[in-house]
Amino acid sequence: MSQEKGFTLGEIARYLGIELKGDESTRVDGIASLKDAKPGQLSFLFSPSFRKYLKTTRASAVVMEDDHSGDCTMPVLIAPDPRLAWAKVSHYFDSRPQPDQSIHPGASVSATANIGKNVTIGANVVIADDVRLGDEVVVGPGCVIGEGCQIDSGTRLSANVTLYHQVTIGKNGIIHSGAVIGADGFGFAFDPEEHRFQKIQQVYGVKIGDDVEIGAGTTIDRGALNDTVLGNGVKLDNQVQVGHNATIGDHTVISGCSAIAGSTSIGSYCLLGGAVGIIDNLYITDHVEITAMTLVSHSIKEPGRYSSGTGLLPSHDWKRSTVGFKKLDNILKRLQRVEKKLQRPDDAKS
Amino acid sequence: MSQEKGFTLGEIARYLGIELKGDESTRVDGIASLKDAKPGQLSFLFSPSFRKYLKTTRASAVVMEDDHSGDCTMPVLIAPDPRLAWAKVSHYFDSRPQPDQSIHPGASVSATANIGKNVTIGANVVIADDVRLGDEVVVGPGCVIGEGCQIDSGTRLSANVTLYHQVTIGKNGIIHSGAVIGADGFGFAFDPEEHRFQKIQQVYGVKIGDDVEIGAGTTIDRGALNDTVLGNGVKLDNQVQVGHNATIGDHTVISGCSAIAGSTSIGSYCLLGGAVGIIDNLYITDHVEITAMTLVSHSIKEPGRYSSGTGLLPSHDWKRSTVGFKKLDNILKRLQRVEKKLQRPDDAKS
Amino acid sequence: MSQEKGFTLGEIARYLGIELKGDESTRVDGIASLKDAKPGQLSFLFSPSFRKYLKTTRASAVVMEDDHSGDCTMPVLIAPDPRLAWAKVSHYFDSRPQPDQSIHPGASVSATANIGKNVTIGANVVIADDVRLGDEVVVGPGCVIGEGCQIDSGTRLSANVTLYHQVTIGKNGIIHSGAVIGADGFGFAFDPEEHRFQKIQQVYGVKIGDDVEIGAGTTIDRGALNDTVLGNGVKLDNQVQVGHNATIGDHTVISGCSAIAGSTSIGSYCLLGGAVGIIDNLYITDHVEITAMTLVSHSIKEPGRYSSGTGLLPSHDWKRSTVGFKKLDNILKRLQRVEKKLQRPDDAKS
Repeated sequence: MSQEKGFTLGEIARYLGIELKGDESTRVDGIASLKDAKPGQLSFLFSPSFRKYLKTTRASAVVMEDDHSGDCTMPVLIAPDPRLAWAKVSHYFDSRPQPDQSIHPGASVSATANIGKNVTIGANVVIADDVRLGDEVVVGPGCVIGEGCQIDSGTRLSANVTLYHQVTIGKNGIIHSGAVIGADGFGFAFDPEEHRFQKIQQVYGVKIGDDVEIGAGTTIDRGALNDTVLGNGVKLDNQVQVGHNATIGDHTVISGCSAIAGSTSIGSYCLLGGAVGIIDNLYITDHVEITAMTLVSHSIKEPGRYSSGTGLLPSHDWKRSTVGFKKLDNILKRLQRVEKKLQRPDDAKS
Repeated sequence: MSQEKGFTLGEIARYLGIELKGDESTRVDGIASLKDAKPGQLSFLFSPSFRKYLKTTRASAVVMEDDHSGDCTMPVLIAPDPRLAWAKVSHYFDSRPQPDQSIHPGASVSATANIGKNVTIGANVVIADDVRLGDEVVVGPGCVIGEGCQIDSGTRLSANVTLYHQVTIGKNGIIHSGAVIGADGFGFAFDPEEHRFQKIQQVYGVKIGDDVEIGAGTTIDRGALNDTVLGNGVKLDNQVQVGHNATIGDHTVISGCSAIAGSTSIGSYCLLGGAVGIIDNLYITDHVEITAMTLVSHSIKEPGRYSSGTGLLPSHDWKRSTVGFKKLDNILKRLQRVEKKLQRPDDAKS
Repeated sequence: MSQEKGFTLGEIARYLGIELKGDESTRVDGIASLKDAKPGQLSFLFSPSFRKYLKTTRASAVVMEDDHSGDCTMPVLIAPDPRLAWAKVSHYFDSRPQPDQSIHPGASVSATANIGKNVTIGANVVIADDVRLGDEVVVGPGCVIGEGCQIDSGTRLSANVTLYHQVTIGKNGIIHSGAVIGADGFGFAFDPEEHRFQKIQQVYGVKIGDDVEIGAGTTIDRGALNDTVLGNGVKLDNQVQVGHNATIGDHTVISGCSAIAGSTSIGSYCLLGGAVGIIDNLYITDHVEITAMTLVSHSIKEPGRYSSGTGLLPSHDWKRSTVGFKKLDNILKRLQRVEKKLQRPDDAKS
């Protein structure tokens, strides 16, 4: 693929294996939303509700599912799944600074650490004893990697990530800044003689598969009686919390601010919305979807979509509904009484 | 204003432009709540429910709205808005250590960075290529500032803040420790051929206006198809999450642990309570208030106050209400049936 | 106690003061769950629902409450509270790397800091002026400790913890990575003349008692009109947020992702589930338990268990219940009307 400024639509169509309607020599050097695109940029139509922007967009070309080319004067790429086309083509326009494959002289790397080829280690990194880093690993500035951690080839840690001891991460992962992996799980036992909680040592580690992305500020605790485990292809958004001994199956995706309590097991290909809570010691099967801000308070054995909470209301109306919520048991009983009376109209009269 | 120990009430009354009842030469050298104030301290009456403390407080003077000076033996400052008076006078007693306007020799500053006048850079800071820092900028110890970031004059980053590349921050901002700005937005497309998610590169940055405060541990993701944007005067509390491509209007205030999903647009002068969730791709107009722990699941086009959730109950009663909640559709149908029967009393009898 | 590989069951039984059924010379060198235990490991039966694993576990010995030794072929330790026994015995198998009681040459320690005996200070640590560290304190790599902080003997900070100025921590605490203590509370006053929020300086600090554990990514704000205070034995899980001026009583335990708003006071021996929210300026008495994801919107003056929210439902059924929730006020009124009609059957007929 040509490395001059941008790419031709012909190159992109061939790479994606999709149909192009329009001039294949047209060049694009960036991607943008339909609304914000400038000339020279490629855009995308993901949903019919954005069709209105097709008339006004300044994009030089648009990727879309069906042939709405009647609406368009610019070239169009016809993709069966524009979102997947976006994912694939987005890598052409990756703007991330590239790692320089050097070890910063200001890093503290233990003599017993085993460092692979073409590894990048930033300033102020601390790598403890017996750490193993695979080839092409990137460790951003300020990261601290505890004793005995293993990070497999191609995984990148952004700046200021903290790994405690005994954390294992597979290949080609991405760990974002502020993430903390392997801190103590939250375990105490109340000691009635001392009137205080005794700490339970968290003696196991964390095992993370290949191709995992972990968001900024996300925390994954180490295990108490077995490792905390994330499968391959798991994606965790920012500020997710994963408790000790939890297991998350392959290719499960968890949105921001969700919290998975200890010893809970989530299946594969699950989708959790934002700020979902799952209490401890539950079992969630594969292919379960949980909508945003749902509390999962019991195990889920059937695939499907689950929710909790109430709808959004103006606060004034909502307050009246919450009054009714508190009376729901009373409402049920009164309704039963009314139904009984109506079944026995003679009693009702008396 | 005199810089000897504390300030006289006369100085304070003149600075705030408010009335003083009492000795204007009385000195105060600190502020405290009515309950905890010691002699020599200035206190505040924000709400009538705290009037009871006026009799016992040891404060040397009190700022209050109405003239409750009958309750007081100490001097009183009469402010139309005691909270605003507090904000203004609090700066007199600012206890923050002052920046020393030097660059720590242990910082790693790229030769291509452009550093303004009187800038303070702490130990172990990493400043990447092509960064621009305005005058009087403060970068606390352990901060990492990515390629091409621009921070305008007077903005202060506390210790251990992380900015990815292409993040722009306006004037006089305050960014607290542990904040991460510009990490990848959470974007994937499922690839049915490979049975896994493909990453969508997040190729845009983050643009933040003037006079913005960002709390500890807050995360603001970079954009995928356009920048993530925060207007002027936006205040984000701790552990807030802002998804990719989101926009937040001027002077909007968001309390702790709230989560704004991707591509959602929030207006100006909005107030979000703590732990609010807003799902993706919504539009919230100006002057909207959302109460704590509300899930916003659809766009809001009318200013006003909005809520979701149920009221707090003893768990035993609450369990019975949740049973009723699950039967609400059934309750509605039964109620309709009962109403029909009562409208046709002859049928009811039969 | 012998320091050869592991410990004998006799040693453990005597240390815990509990009964052993089986060979007291049997050695165990680790702990694990019943399901995952290997020969040579000690396991635990916490709940009757796990009794099924007793037949298949490979553990060399099991700690359990009642005598289910009929189910077991291996030695059994009979503990009145197996969880407390676990806590006590877990320290035998503590796998944490031990601090080396040295000050890393790459740390920046102020000349005015007062450092106790046997203190460990990691690489890239920054210790500001007038800090006092007690004996045996451990400060992990990358920590920043602000002006005037005091950390009492035996307290350990993991890597990348940030303390602002004027933070006091008692003895034997554990502060996990990414925690930020003493950032500005979230305080602003709207200035109608300038159409913007004025910052209220947060001039007080944070005071934390003895034997406190603070989770990864947890944030505790400094006070505005008095200190933010955590009592002795408080345990905060990961990503908890504590607002300014809040007070948390002794031995209160708060699970992950909970948020305590400003000026709220929580009693002693309270238990908060995960992702609980408590609004500002409330009073919660001692011995209150709050279930996961509950919003506490008013003070709680009676000990007990409290909840809010709805139960979990398949999304399809849940949507219908939320429709009913919105009509609850209407349902109540219609029910009253129906009841009235039935009380006056003659009216109903007319």
